[in-house]
Amino acid sequence: MRTSVTLVSQRIEERWRSPEPKSGSGATVEFRGCVRDRENGQSISALDYEAYETMALRMMERILDEEAMKHPCEQVVVIHRHGRIPVGDTAILVWIEARHRGEAFALLAAFMDRLKTDVPIWKAGFAPC
Amino acid sequence: MRTSVTLVSQRIEERWRSPEPKSGSGATVEFRGCVRDRENGQSISALDYEAYETMALRMMERILDEEAMKHPCEQVVVIHRHGRIPVGDTAILVWIEARHRGEAFALLAAFMDRLKTDVPIWKAGFAPC
Repeated sequence: MRTSVTLVSQRIEERWRSPEPKSGSGATVEFRGCVRDRENGQSISALDYEAYETMALRMMERILDEEAMKHPCEQVVVIHRHGRIPVGDTAILVWIEARHRGEAFALLAAFMDRLKTDVPIWKAGFAPC
Repeated sequence: MRTSVTLVSQRIEERWRSPEPKSGSGATVEFRGCVRDRENGQSISALDYEAYETMALRMMERILDEEAMKHPCEQVVVIHRHGRIPVGDTAILVWIEARHRGEAFALLAAFMDRLKTDVPIWKAGFAPC
């Protein structure tokens, strides 16, 4: 499985989204997680994400390797933004290309669950409205 | 939940893909199912999909209504192509916007499973290479 995992501090661009899958693959699933306008019941204008960068990259790659043993896919791309992220902007973009949709859905769900618990990227604060 | 279900006979265009979610929503998941280069072990150049159109649209809407009771989401868009679809082209595009990713993943998986069993859209033939 081809894997690309990146941390960026700028806006995640439209051109980084998934292309049409290669003709041997039948399915692409793409997830975009964005900053909501409320945090703990308070209206906000931005969220601050911090990351322990080298460890975060290593952990994301490890999770993908482990989960791909259970849910084999063709290609995975993960781009996680950190720093101050305005409301509405994308904080994480993940796309997965696979021969069949089941594997892509399973790998995406497993990766996102473990991202939240195992990867040192965290909400460090927010900017109120 | 806002719902849009469409059958088209032309190419599914890039501009129909999911936009960034509204600021109250946190998650968008997008699925693209494409024509693979093999069908039943044979190399092909295109697949022919046929649809019983009015019934297919009604069934897709009903499935979304039913599944959204279990997995509430903000918006769903489904575009299914029929007719002759060349290898590599998108046969179906589905995108779902939700407050939380769990509901979006669950609705997408449930819809795709039921699409295959309950909706009168079928592979009517293929063009060999």
